[in-house]
Amino acid sequence: MRAVAIVGIGATRFGRTERPLLDLMCDACLEAFDDAQLGDRPVDAVYAASMGALRNNHISAVASALADRLCLQPAAPDTLENGSASGASAVKSGVLAVASGYYDRVLVCGGERMRGMQGVDITDFIATVTHREAEYIYGATLPGLAGLFARAHMQRYGVTQRDLARVAVKNHRNAMLNPRAHLRFEVTLEQLFDDPHFAKRNPLVADPLRRFDCCPVSDGAAALLMVPADQAARYNDRAVRVAGLGHVGAVHAVSARANMLDLEAVRLAAERAYALAGIQAKQIDVAELHDAFTILEIVESEAVGFFDRGQGHVALAANETARDGSLPINPSGGLKARGHPVGATGVSQVVEVVRQLRGEAGGYQVSGSPQAGFAVNLGGFSSNAVATVLTRSL
Amino acid sequence: MRAVAIVGIGATRFGRTERPLLDLMCDACLEAFDDAQLGDRPVDAVYAASMGALRNNHISAVASALADRLCLQPAAPDTLENGSASGASAVKSGVLAVASGYYDRVLVCGGERMRGMQGVDITDFIATVTHREAEYIYGATLPGLAGLFARAHMQRYGVTQRDLARVAVKNHRNAMLNPRAHLRFEVTLEQLFDDPHFAKRNPLVADPLRRFDCCPVSDGAAALLMVPADQAARYNDRAVRVAGLGHVGAVHAVSARANMLDLEAVRLAAERAYALAGIQAKQIDVAELHDAFTILEIVESEAVGFFDRGQGHVALAANETARDGSLPINPSGGLKARGHPVGATGVSQVVEVVRQLRGEAGGYQVSGSPQAGFAVNLGGFSSNAVATVLTRSL
Repeated sequence: MRAVAIVGIGATRFGRTERPLLDLMCDACLEAFDDAQLGDRPVDAVYAASMGALRNNHISAVASALADRLCLQPAAPDTLENGSASGASAVKSGVLAVASGYYDRVLVCGGERMRGMQGVDITDFIATVTHREAEYIYGATLPGLAGLFARAHMQRYGVTQRDLARVAVKNHRNAMLNPRAHLRFEVTLEQLFDDPHFAKRNPLVADPLRRFDCCPVSDGAAALLMVPADQAARYNDRAVRVAGLGHVGAVHAVSARANMLDLEAVRLAAERAYALAGIQAKQIDVAELHDAFTILEIVESEAVGFFDRGQGHVALAANETARDGSLPINPSGGLKARGHPVGATGVSQVVEVVRQLRGEAGGYQVSGSPQAGFAVNLGGFSSNAVATVLTRSL
Repeated sequence: MRAVAIVGIGATRFGRTERPLLDLMCDACLEAFDDAQLGDRPVDAVYAASMGALRNNHISAVASALADRLCLQPAAPDTLENGSASGASAVKSGVLAVASGYYDRVLVCGGERMRGMQGVDITDFIATVTHREAEYIYGATLPGLAGLFARAHMQRYGVTQRDLARVAVKNHRNAMLNPRAHLRFEVTLEQLFDDPHFAKRNPLVADPLRRFDCCPVSDGAAALLMVPADQAARYNDRAVRVAGLGHVGAVHAVSARANMLDLEAVRLAAERAYALAGIQAKQIDVAELHDAFTILEIVESEAVGFFDRGQGHVALAANETARDGSLPINPSGGLKARGHPVGATGVSQVVEVVRQLRGEAGGYQVSGSPQAGFAVNLGGFSSNAVATVLTRSL
């Protein structure tokens, strides 16, 4: 396989917007082109990700529409959909396409425009990733599954609601410094647990998860430009290598898994990504994990090998995963506070890790000079997961 | 790039069914596994194609659901959507994934379940591939665009409605011999033009196109198993090589194209596929073209280089493209009569070409011993196109 590098990144601010989906995606792509110093060099292919472009925005083949809007003809457009891992699936497709030698310049863009939908409609939209016969038709939702999962994990490992809330507190604090984040305000443990007035803003969503344990509903887009690593210097001196990639499927219905608390897809995807990159989990300097719910950041930090099983909440409480900790997790604010425009998320995680490795994250830059970064994006409730290892050295 | 071979094929009958989408897709995949003599060897990845699984069947991440249903864990699932070229996009993804060296056994499956939708709803669903601002919001539909395109082509090249109907007559005749085809009955020029009783069954859809100029609305699925060509002999002795692949995007809005009658995406995609395969158009022995409307088969047969521009209808009338002609086109019945379950079509075209190259097409086997086959799948109204060249020799 040819080594693959990312030479350009772009992203809109995540949050509420009235702008159409394609406008958001174009903004992210144009920023990535500028960042890459692409100039008038043609793009060979466009891999776009969106979960709901057809259902929610009435556009199918969104990659084709995007390539046309950007006047990229004759670039070849493909749209990837993999639920909440749609973005990472597009990243993977871009990596394999360049690795194969078939393309030399690939644009990857994820976008989602969810505004205008009603609350129940959004929950139903997302719930279409669950197992249709075993979960969906019985009313299972993602918050519902996450609540059951959280309760089981808490009971086994002595995790408390306060531990969960520490994820939100950390990630909101990080997001305050990220100009592209959706929820740029601080939240404290005192507010969440001791302030009766604030409690009204933090109702139960799916016991034990409250609103501040759940990511917001966001609009937004993110984009990457990928090229062969040995051609990266033709663009700029800020290239980052996609050193490792792992994508693994697991048993779909959560209740049918051998061990419900084992996020097997996440664990195996990370192992494969590390193996391909030739590194170990302890060599990762910065990570973006899929914290659609606070419990997920804790359990994923164990599944990907950063901490021993049952120790994720301990490391969190000890500030090891804070921006200035030994292993910063979600310095961008994560899904929890940066936001979660579904199809954009997997791409934006990689964008954020690239930013950190380049040392260009500004106010939310992690300390030291990170050399290796990691991202994991979940499809469904971990029915599959895509893990990526990025390195500063090509 | 590693050479890629197809060692297994499968397909359901196309047509009306009450069976769910995943059942159809599983049937096609299991047949492909048997055909490949896969045994207990694990599949590395699943590339599934469906245009409307979320909108029409309430399932997102259909590749993930399919991989789970087939117990393929830890295989990595990705879903491709590219309008009516979704199937070919999945084929392309499978080819590049094996070519890259990242995967050794890739399952490609396309499926669509459109029954249950109302007439207008189906037309609207398909129309989401048109340009949103320039076409869709003004009520443009695929039959509408095809009608305008047909009239313009007819005026310039002296093509008649009777010429268009010859595509239907030929493809219905072929479909009668294909046990998996949707419309397995004959239709004659006499019925279509001289029989007042039959005329009721053939109303205008979009002048000059009548019902028998349009493909039916079908359900169905098709599947392929791909491996590196140098490993094909481990499976069976019926492997076919994916020798060429071309995927090209064009201007989206039909009215904005430099020459509306030039199916540029088709033309350039074919050129690229031939170049990669190191062959010329005249070396193709059998082809499956995207005849969603009769006019398209005629114009595509010119765009891909089989006949000079404006000569497609002449070759058709001379029976050159009949099953026993010098260059059989759509011996399976094509989209027109085999049927067009949107996401399945691009995969099924390749399945049908493989069948012909193996000499296993039974009653609809073309004469001679075809060595090279070709398929082209259109996204939108040729806003992009994927062309594939398949060869008997590895």
